[in-house]
Amino acid sequence: MSKIAILCSGGDSSGMNPAIKRFVEYSFSKNLKPYFVYGGYEGLIDNKISQANYSDVTGIIHRGGTKIYSARSLRFKEKKYRDIAAKNLKDLGIENLVVLGGDGSFQGMQIFFEEHHIAFCGIPATIDNDINGTQYCLGVDTALNVIKVATDNIRDTASSFKRAFVIEVMGRDCGYLALVSALTSGAEMCLIPEIPYDLNSLKKRYLKEVEQGRSYFIAIVAEGLDNAERISTWFEEEIGFESRVTTLGHIQRGGNPTVRERLMAYQFSTYAIDALVSGKTNSVICYNDGAFNFKSIDEINAKKYEIETNLLNLGKSLLNK
Amino acid sequence: MSKIAILCSGGDSSGMNPAIKRFVEYSFSKNLKPYFVYGGYEGLIDNKISQANYSDVTGIIHRGGTKIYSARSLRFKEKKYRDIAAKNLKDLGIENLVVLGGDGSFQGMQIFFEEHHIAFCGIPATIDNDINGTQYCLGVDTALNVIKVATDNIRDTASSFKRAFVIEVMGRDCGYLALVSALTSGAEMCLIPEIPYDLNSLKKRYLKEVEQGRSYFIAIVAEGLDNAERISTWFEEEIGFESRVTTLGHIQRGGNPTVRERLMAYQFSTYAIDALVSGKTNSVICYNDGAFNFKSIDEINAKKYEIETNLLNLGKSLLNK
Amino acid sequence: MSKIAILCSGGDSSGMNPAIKRFVEYSFSKNLKPYFVYGGYEGLIDNKISQANYSDVTGIIHRGGTKIYSARSLRFKEKKYRDIAAKNLKDLGIENLVVLGGDGSFQGMQIFFEEHHIAFCGIPATIDNDINGTQYCLGVDTALNVIKVATDNIRDTASSFKRAFVIEVMGRDCGYLALVSALTSGAEMCLIPEIPYDLNSLKKRYLKEVEQGRSYFIAIVAEGLDNAERISTWFEEEIGFESRVTTLGHIQRGGNPTVRERLMAYQFSTYAIDALVSGKTNSVICYNDGAFNFKSIDEINAKKYEIETNLLNLGKSLLNK
Amino acid sequence: MSKIAILCSGGDSSGMNPAIKRFVEYSFSKNLKPYFVYGGYEGLIDNKISQANYSDVTGIIHRGGTKIYSARSLRFKEKKYRDIAAKNLKDLGIENLVVLGGDGSFQGMQIFFEEHHIAFCGIPATIDNDINGTQYCLGVDTALNVIKVATDNIRDTASSFKRAFVIEVMGRDCGYLALVSALTSGAEMCLIPEIPYDLNSLKKRYLKEVEQGRSYFIAIVAEGLDNAERISTWFEEEIGFESRVTTLGHIQRGGNPTVRERLMAYQFSTYAIDALVSGKTNSVICYNDGAFNFKSIDEINAKKYEIETNLLNLGKSLLNK
Repeated sequence: MSKIAILCSGGDSSGMNPAIKRFVEYSFSKNLKPYFVYGGYEGLIDNKISQANYSDVTGIIHRGGTKIYSARSLRFKEKKYRDIAAKNLKDLGIENLVVLGGDGSFQGMQIFFEEHHIAFCGIPATIDNDINGTQYCLGVDTALNVIKVATDNIRDTASSFKRAFVIEVMGRDCGYLALVSALTSGAEMCLIPEIPYDLNSLKKRYLKEVEQGRSYFIAIVAEGLDNAERISTWFEEEIGFESRVTTLGHIQRGGNPTVRERLMAYQFSTYAIDALVSGKTNSVICYNDGAFNFKSIDEINAKKYEIETNLLNLGKSLLNK
Repeated sequence: MSKIAILCSGGDSSGMNPAIKRFVEYSFSKNLKPYFVYGGYEGLIDNKISQANYSDVTGIIHRGGTKIYSARSLRFKEKKYRDIAAKNLKDLGIENLVVLGGDGSFQGMQIFFEEHHIAFCGIPATIDNDINGTQYCLGVDTALNVIKVATDNIRDTASSFKRAFVIEVMGRDCGYLALVSALTSGAEMCLIPEIPYDLNSLKKRYLKEVEQGRSYFIAIVAEGLDNAERISTWFEEEIGFESRVTTLGHIQRGGNPTVRERLMAYQFSTYAIDALVSGKTNSVICYNDGAFNFKSIDEINAKKYEIETNLLNLGKSLLNK
Repeated sequence: MSKIAILCSGGDSSGMNPAIKRFVEYSFSKNLKPYFVYGGYEGLIDNKISQANYSDVTGIIHRGGTKIYSARSLRFKEKKYRDIAAKNLKDLGIENLVVLGGDGSFQGMQIFFEEHHIAFCGIPATIDNDINGTQYCLGVDTALNVIKVATDNIRDTASSFKRAFVIEVMGRDCGYLALVSALTSGAEMCLIPEIPYDLNSLKKRYLKEVEQGRSYFIAIVAEGLDNAERISTWFEEEIGFESRVTTLGHIQRGGNPTVRERLMAYQFSTYAIDALVSGKTNSVICYNDGAFNFKSIDEINAKKYEIETNLLNLGKSLLNK
Repeated sequence: MSKIAILCSGGDSSGMNPAIKRFVEYSFSKNLKPYFVYGGYEGLIDNKISQANYSDVTGIIHRGGTKIYSARSLRFKEKKYRDIAAKNLKDLGIENLVVLGGDGSFQGMQIFFEEHHIAFCGIPATIDNDINGTQYCLGVDTALNVIKVATDNIRDTASSFKRAFVIEVMGRDCGYLALVSALTSGAEMCLIPEIPYDLNSLKKRYLKEVEQGRSYFIAIVAEGLDNAERISTWFEEEIGFESRVTTLGHIQRGGNPTVRERLMAYQFSTYAIDALVSGKTNSVICYNDGAFNFKSIDEINAKKYEIETNLLNLGKSLLNK
């Protein structure tokens, strides 16, 4: 019976646990022996690898984070450690790896594959949704719903005063979370790294709206802009509204995975295992236009992720375009 | 300025309110004057039609149900009432209608269009997800997440005893809700109208699992089968587990719309208005493979909705295939 | 080091897991060796008793149900089985028991104590809140909040139609859940076993309200009355409103314990252990007027639980008094 | 028919809306004519006072914040503005006021009463729970449950890494929220203004726990200490754990009120109106040891709020006592 392992690399995201659960169950149904690597590439190097069983994955489908831990690994960038990692896997007879992580993690895996011919299939997992080549990354739907609840709460308090609230959400280089959150929460303003904005024209618009009766503002900004405080001051000085900043931070990573998250996790794991079983050696399972397809690391890394034009168009008025 | 109205017909679903909010806001941005028809086709007949404003749609984005009421209308099946409805609209100068509802509602609208040349665009809205021609209907994602929370709660209590729980979810003719819920909640059994099942073979499998240590069962069944009680008795008599039935009922229709729901609502309304503005007279805006497209009533009614093969394959072991 | 065990008896309720967690942690801090009895009195008889450790209670604070299982036990009513249970405990050197359950369970424990001099402290745990002598039972606050979410969802859909919804909540002999839920959810009607009601006078009142514009009804009824369907028919026939029944069922037992639940659990376990350590041999830890106090089984069983007059007064108009 | 008004002063809190709903409904049942004052004392001065009706309070029971706005008022500290406020009320014939707010707001009201003999009853409302003389303030139970959800989310991610998380909760001068949250969330550390702590002894304890296998820390600190960042650095430098700070901020103020919140709101409003009707002229309705009682402003202001000893004792090990 062939052996297959799974690991999580980089930032954790909700959806990893359901993917791990499906990994174990589907492996057994395919007559594969499933293994966990604990703590990402660090665990590969330190040989923290153990066989997994049904009982390891009961009661995890509704938990955020990852039962098998994640980590960033500097050592895995050095050949000598990758050699150790490869030896550990080969000693155990593990020939296939499923890797949950981002493009950086996949890049490391590709090098590892070229050196040691250990097959892998990557599953895109990051709440930022910023991996090129796939429209969905594990963790995004849950993160969006966590932001929604927080924004609904803040609107309660915003609408009780004449106030502006500036909410900073994750997405260092990518405004996806901010844009979708703004579109779906009835926010008045959305600032993302992808789209330049003009505070002067916003000022004119907002002052007019205030004149017409607007009594509070909710602005959602991507953390990449590092300007939540600046925007808050701008509301105070230019619009004349008392203003508050809320940085949502790590609550966005956790939370009981949504149904969509769990279903995507289920499918990502299924396709990843199918790929490895069928002999695909180094690919990433992507989701585009309602279907799953495999891409090479080169395709993934060919360019930076870009938010779909459709979404940018929907957000035009929020984005000050 | 051209006038446009919106109405909800048939069973309500979460997502209608965000769609109504976007309808009003996008109408204004397109220089259209938006109207509400209260209480579906009944409201058309009884002339419960009034102009809508921004203030009508504040504070509704996070509410389930529909602010403008829904209804089923027997009268609208009679020509004399449709004539009255048409007169009411023409007196007000309303030339375009956005209709949230199911295929039955669209069918009625098509006849109305043929008789009176009032243009419409349908938005599929039903938690059953059983409209042919679209992979998504408004209300489904929220319903699934309501079921998820209920199932998570029931698993808490199921795992505290040696027990079976049979959960009946909506879907009279369509097992979509039941199947996706079972896949994403770690249920052991799923019975849907589309797939025949063999209790004898299930009995063998379950008894073996009990021998291996299984201590509780969660079964999700579609209401269409009308057999939750029968399955519960089967667990008691054939598997030897105390068993309980929970019928989720109307809690599935309500609830704060999820982010996906709101985003779909936002897009459905946008495309519906775009269609009417561009001269499309009688179509339904559908969502397939990640994109929005328009279909005629004939295409929608050409056949019954079928669950995607992909999903049925994923659920093989649950579905006793 | 003295040994102490914990068990759950009867219906499960949210709050048991946090109580178990605190039991283990506080036992260690008091230099006691904690044990779990699995499956209530059945586990005592079948010697399913094992030592507990910190790691057994990580990750359970936010889970409903009970990690150590609960059960009803007919055998424990027979002396020969109680003798076996006592022998099992004595063989292990366990001298103290914490028992989570209802008055029936405490009664059994009292007999066991009289026969075998194994000390116990009862913690009232049932979502029905129907144990005489304590104003709070573990599980109630969480159950109430589960009902709240369900009722909020149903109001979404009720307010989208001209309809009545009859919601049946738990409480076979006790209307506490129904009354508090009705008071806090804005329901129009509440029927509980404690208070007789007069449908004729309600009919007059409701018809007047309908005339004045009331467009939907939410009725909350205790399951003990077994009349949800009857009331629903009454709304259809007497008030002229389409009507639907929703039976919340077992979702009320589960769910992530609320903060109040967890804090009560924490305190109940603390006081129970303190009592046993200080030599109290057979008591129940109760909560009244903001303080914890111990009562004997006789006091608990002296009369049936009665809802506080204060609450009944608040609910006057709902209760048709 | 006598006239009665309600206003919210100071920071908003969840529970205000249910209190307002009950105020209107109970006023009518007592044959009083209810009025809203919009925007706290500012609204009194600016005569933003209007009659309230049933329809004003439908659909607000499940919303955080306050429908009638809150504000802080500097002008109300000046006699000339209080004179204007009194004239406004007298012109409308309003003789009684219900005031939701904190001790500062009650103090202002007391002066107003002494000057103008307008009767009032205060309802303690602040999420900090820091008003002397009452064990409960409106907003606390909801805030605690919002913190719980956030902490549960953060634990998901904390347990996926070897990390410390420092969560800052509200409570500038009062550690109540922090303490109860820490007790009920399984946090390892809790720092509050009331209790001095010794990082050296904590370091010894934590390092020992790490040696024994502890893999993550959750610390909850009150904002009053202004040291979340400092504690985070301490974890990095002294304990050797990567560490992150999350400041929950304004999400704590909002959110759908819990059942307990709604029930307390319901009762506070009822008793406040009863007090005014029965001729009580200047009191605050308090909740202590399970009962409601009235206190004078002098009693409220006699000393600073102190956390109950019972709670401090429960938290001993968390608080480094």
